[in-house]
Amino acid sequence: MRALRYVAIGQAPEVVDIPIPRPGPGQVLLKVTAGGVCHSDDYVMGLSEEEYLGQGYPLPMTLGHEGAGIVHELGEGVDTVAVGDAVAVYGPWGCGYCRNCSMGRENYCTNAAALGIRPPGLGNQGSMAEYMIVDDPRHLVPLGDLDPVKNVSLTDAGLTPYHAIKRSLPKLGAGTSAVVIGSGGLGHVGIQILKALSGARVIVLDVNDQKLELARHVGADETLISDETAVGRILELTGGVGADAVFDFVGAKATIPLAVSVAAVEGDVTVVGIGGGEVAFGFGTINYDVAVRIPYWGYRNELIEVLDLARAGKVDVEVQPYSLDDGPRAYADLASGSIRGRAVIVP
Amino acid sequence: MRALRYVAIGQAPEVVDIPIPRPGPGQVLLKVTAGGVCHSDDYVMGLSEEEYLGQGYPLPMTLGHEGAGIVHELGEGVDTVAVGDAVAVYGPWGCGYCRNCSMGRENYCTNAAALGIRPPGLGNQGSMAEYMIVDDPRHLVPLGDLDPVKNVSLTDAGLTPYHAIKRSLPKLGAGTSAVVIGSGGLGHVGIQILKALSGARVIVLDVNDQKLELARHVGADETLISDETAVGRILELTGGVGADAVFDFVGAKATIPLAVSVAAVEGDVTVVGIGGGEVAFGFGTINYDVAVRIPYWGYRNELIEVLDLARAGKVDVEVQPYSLDDGPRAYADLASGSIRGRAVIVP
Amino acid sequence: MRALRYVAIGQAPEVVDIPIPRPGPGQVLLKVTAGGVCHSDDYVMGLSEEEYLGQGYPLPMTLGHEGAGIVHELGEGVDTVAVGDAVAVYGPWGCGYCRNCSMGRENYCTNAAALGIRPPGLGNQGSMAEYMIVDDPRHLVPLGDLDPVKNVSLTDAGLTPYHAIKRSLPKLGAGTSAVVIGSGGLGHVGIQILKALSGARVIVLDVNDQKLELARHVGADETLISDETAVGRILELTGGVGADAVFDFVGAKATIPLAVSVAAVEGDVTVVGIGGGEVAFGFGTINYDVAVRIPYWGYRNELIEVLDLARAGKVDVEVQPYSLDDGPRAYADLASGSIRGRAVIVP
Amino acid sequence: MRALRYVAIGQAPEVVDIPIPRPGPGQVLLKVTAGGVCHSDDYVMGLSEEEYLGQGYPLPMTLGHEGAGIVHELGEGVDTVAVGDAVAVYGPWGCGYCRNCSMGRENYCTNAAALGIRPPGLGNQGSMAEYMIVDDPRHLVPLGDLDPVKNVSLTDAGLTPYHAIKRSLPKLGAGTSAVVIGSGGLGHVGIQILKALSGARVIVLDVNDQKLELARHVGADETLISDETAVGRILELTGGVGADAVFDFVGAKATIPLAVSVAAVEGDVTVVGIGGGEVAFGFGTINYDVAVRIPYWGYRNELIEVLDLARAGKVDVEVQPYSLDDGPRAYADLASGSIRGRAVIVP
Repeated sequence: MRALRYVAIGQAPEVVDIPIPRPGPGQVLLKVTAGGVCHSDDYVMGLSEEEYLGQGYPLPMTLGHEGAGIVHELGEGVDTVAVGDAVAVYGPWGCGYCRNCSMGRENYCTNAAALGIRPPGLGNQGSMAEYMIVDDPRHLVPLGDLDPVKNVSLTDAGLTPYHAIKRSLPKLGAGTSAVVIGSGGLGHVGIQILKALSGARVIVLDVNDQKLELARHVGADETLISDETAVGRILELTGGVGADAVFDFVGAKATIPLAVSVAAVEGDVTVVGIGGGEVAFGFGTINYDVAVRIPYWGYRNELIEVLDLARAGKVDVEVQPYSLDDGPRAYADLASGSIRGRAVIVP
Repeated sequence: MRALRYVAIGQAPEVVDIPIPRPGPGQVLLKVTAGGVCHSDDYVMGLSEEEYLGQGYPLPMTLGHEGAGIVHELGEGVDTVAVGDAVAVYGPWGCGYCRNCSMGRENYCTNAAALGIRPPGLGNQGSMAEYMIVDDPRHLVPLGDLDPVKNVSLTDAGLTPYHAIKRSLPKLGAGTSAVVIGSGGLGHVGIQILKALSGARVIVLDVNDQKLELARHVGADETLISDETAVGRILELTGGVGADAVFDFVGAKATIPLAVSVAAVEGDVTVVGIGGGEVAFGFGTINYDVAVRIPYWGYRNELIEVLDLARAGKVDVEVQPYSLDDGPRAYADLASGSIRGRAVIVP
Repeated sequence: MRALRYVAIGQAPEVVDIPIPRPGPGQVLLKVTAGGVCHSDDYVMGLSEEEYLGQGYPLPMTLGHEGAGIVHELGEGVDTVAVGDAVAVYGPWGCGYCRNCSMGRENYCTNAAALGIRPPGLGNQGSMAEYMIVDDPRHLVPLGDLDPVKNVSLTDAGLTPYHAIKRSLPKLGAGTSAVVIGSGGLGHVGIQILKALSGARVIVLDVNDQKLELARHVGADETLISDETAVGRILELTGGVGADAVFDFVGAKATIPLAVSVAAVEGDVTVVGIGGGEVAFGFGTINYDVAVRIPYWGYRNELIEVLDLARAGKVDVEVQPYSLDDGPRAYADLASGSIRGRAVIVP
Repeated sequence: MRALRYVAIGQAPEVVDIPIPRPGPGQVLLKVTAGGVCHSDDYVMGLSEEEYLGQGYPLPMTLGHEGAGIVHELGEGVDTVAVGDAVAVYGPWGCGYCRNCSMGRENYCTNAAALGIRPPGLGNQGSMAEYMIVDDPRHLVPLGDLDPVKNVSLTDAGLTPYHAIKRSLPKLGAGTSAVVIGSGGLGHVGIQILKALSGARVIVLDVNDQKLELARHVGADETLISDETAVGRILELTGGVGADAVFDFVGAKATIPLAVSVAAVEGDVTVVGIGGGEVAFGFGTINYDVAVRIPYWGYRNELIEVLDLARAGKVDVEVQPYSLDDGPRAYADLASGSIRGRAVIVP
């Protein structure tokens, strides 16, 4: 079969021919219908040889931690899915046995690091191939009639903002406001989730009006260029008290202090982007009982739920499809910033 | 001033002339801009003399527990509102001192019964007059620019469904369903609250298509005549598992078992209507962990929140205005069932 | 191996010799260290032939839905447990694939009924044998150093009250009260869970002082004979407002109305016992916003948690051990009411 | 009457004679039974003249934001308390009208800053006098039979940790751990609250064993000197995953990073102490979904609840009483660190 693989440290991924794998006992073989492209792949391919191998990643490694497919063959003992089922892959694999995993919170498995359990495409062979192995049927959720190409990105670019937003929903009832920083691949999905599930007025910040146009297209109530006037404008829009929840999909040194400065008393600041930054906790530096956190991906049930949102027509991902052979070009386009929404590989 | 009062047991209310009251220390005098008509008023006027006086209700009593007005005069020591403020009246008055009242849950005051504290229009002089006394400024919330005639009903017909629905919101995320039984004065507001704040598909039942037309007008996703096929249809619409929350705005012997029979495992059944009925709790008679309850009115903060929904254009009450002199006719129309939405008295 | 089996409809269970089963792919074979005796077994053995077979139960069936053991042999593809691990069995098996199962809420699996998935000992071969098959390692939780005989009952008699109580914990903070009706096998565990995890004063009712002595022994703050003075006493103890949560471990026609009548506004009534009864929902028949429900068993993570309580020395089950050969006598003793706490079969 | 007042910027407080104040309409005059001494008073007295007057604080100002007393005289219009009632003062006064105040969350009043509303002893005349004015009866809660001297500190040193801990209780069930940094005035109360209301194992850190002895005396499960081995010890005690909640009652540059480093995935870090510090949010610097926050004082209902804990014998404050005339010495002792628990002025 054809597969898009990371073959040599520091080099672009290549499309190669490899044998179709066979599912062992308890495993499932999918015929892949779509695989999503993500900035995290770039991050992994940017690691030094020492870092990459030190994390126990295989080389070559088929890319792709967002995946959808049709169940093609069952390993022995598998009976929760059937050949022919259309499914999406739940990517943050865990041990299935610890307390977090017992609740389907495998993204927070307490044994994964010690046992070397890793997501497909981020340490295991991923979805950017004609076929892929899923280690356990519990890492599949029903896709049903949903178009795999349109929706495969929901397994990460949908699940990640969904998880972040769901935690803040109790604070986002009537008369509330939410700020979204960054209207890109994750942000434009987050805006739709907020509109579908909360009562909040959604205020979106980005660096240029082209990005903000996408925000407005998917339902943003207010859009602002993130310049030096942004904090003042947000306070004005929120009656001087700030926003009840702020979702920072950029997560950089510059955006985190901005996010903190516009959060109301007892509000939430969730830093989804992976850049990192410092927050000063002290009188006058942050409103009382603002909770700041950085989440990672999402729970199994949350993937079912975000697909339900898509099924109800409430979440629609901007998608640019590429063939498997064009996969390397998709990563080049991602690096150049020319993708609106998400790139998807269609084998 | 003119006032619509209940003057004699068992007789229709009358419009009479009485002196304008003066606010005592800590009280507020409102110039009334609107007073809402409610079935509860009929219930009170249907009590026998023994029941009515036994509850300590005054006679004559100005009707109206839904009220809005302009602050006209402040009693000594009042400084949280100012003359000229447009306000709505929070009706379920409590002691202000018990634990429930300390959280603004005055509808569940643990001292009100013992101390004889009662709502305006339901034991105290109410809003259907040119002026009314509010006993404490904490029983007012800002109305701002909202049209008092369009929105006065939200103080009960909005607050009551809002309170009921807010408690179930954690169960009404993505991929869920809510059933509303009865699309009348409270029900048609409830539908809008569900659409504004939850991810649920809203399924509405009523006895005829005219009522269901109002339901569709305010956003119902599915409407059903509540005949013997209704239960089967709801199970079909919910994939066989039932609804995550059921709000019974009729609350009669016939509707309560219907409500219970369509609630999913771990769902909520909230009986808002006041008829009453029996529920069998046992294996096979009700799904596991379905919580059944009957609420009463709502919290102070919830009134602020439901007015915020109106301010955001997300709740719109169907209103039929009557002059104060036409007040008796409003009650006659209510009794005959000819009102679509809510009747409002405009002094 | 020896096994305690239900062999003929309407007859007492028998100890018989059967072959040791072998685990299929994805399954686990346990060497059983303890199996708990429960009233539910009696209920199943009391079914008519038509009911029993109509539910798809096998005959003969090894009893025992409470089980603990040592992992003896792994089916192909199993790697989350290892031979030699001490484990407890999570009994309410589900499909592992629906949204409820994705959160470990397999007791509320939406596919189990349609797929014929049933607990061990209640439709599958159970724990009262020298060896038992567990269909999937996710139905095991670590037992560690805990004594299996002392703690096996926690898989049902601990998990069931734990699940019921955990849901009410947000209502059982400082200054609150909880009522426990019935201080038997489940009740005496429930009392300890309440003392360990809540701030509530625990008031226990039972029919005689011998039962109440067990309640006091495990930490009850107040004990009352459940006669006609009980309601008045509870209201007196709770300052006239009632209890914030009531757990009815008897669940009979007589106890359910009692439970409802002592629940405070916004309180919980959880009917754990399986008798069943009617509740009138109407003004004056039940306090506002009291939530009434009947739960079933518990979640996977909750079993981990209740075992953690035992590990911390906060839950201790009164146990009467029987050998496997004495199993029939254990059921006879259960029927005669002569067991204090729980009976446990030790193979 | 005698009053302990801050009279001149930068100088120690003095005991002076001033007239007994009279309550205006809506106000209450208390005969003070106890007033608590707090580090915050020192903070205020350490402000420069510009800072002090810039905040609108009066000079002279009677100290004391922790207060208890007997209702001595009612202003006009007050009827929720009666002369002779024993009460405690809820200190974080708000407007009573905004949404937060409507829920009794006056510590987070959104109007207080703009309206210049300040707590007694921190901007208003406080409790360290024979009599004090409380501006509204809603700022009183019943003290009942509780000893005012033993319990007055609960109005801040109890309420502040109670508020912080209550928010984390959903994370502190069976099998969990909580870390308390600092076993002083607030910390030793926090330990007791955790033991009374949660299932957590309580691990306490402080700088010397004398402080830790107080921690053990009030129920700490584990006590550790906060040296360079502390982080490793906590991880060891929590099975490598960290604590589910960390309460930093010191809140200094050194303790905040320590607090963050021992918090488990999805845990809480609450910085109660007022020193302030920086937190790095990025991959590897903090566990996923750890929520970091700084709270301020507490809600009205929470004061009722923490007094309920005292009434149930579950919270006991270490107290050192001083006469009003000895008040200046109490502040000197506080500054020198020689007080175990809390200092209380008894007029």
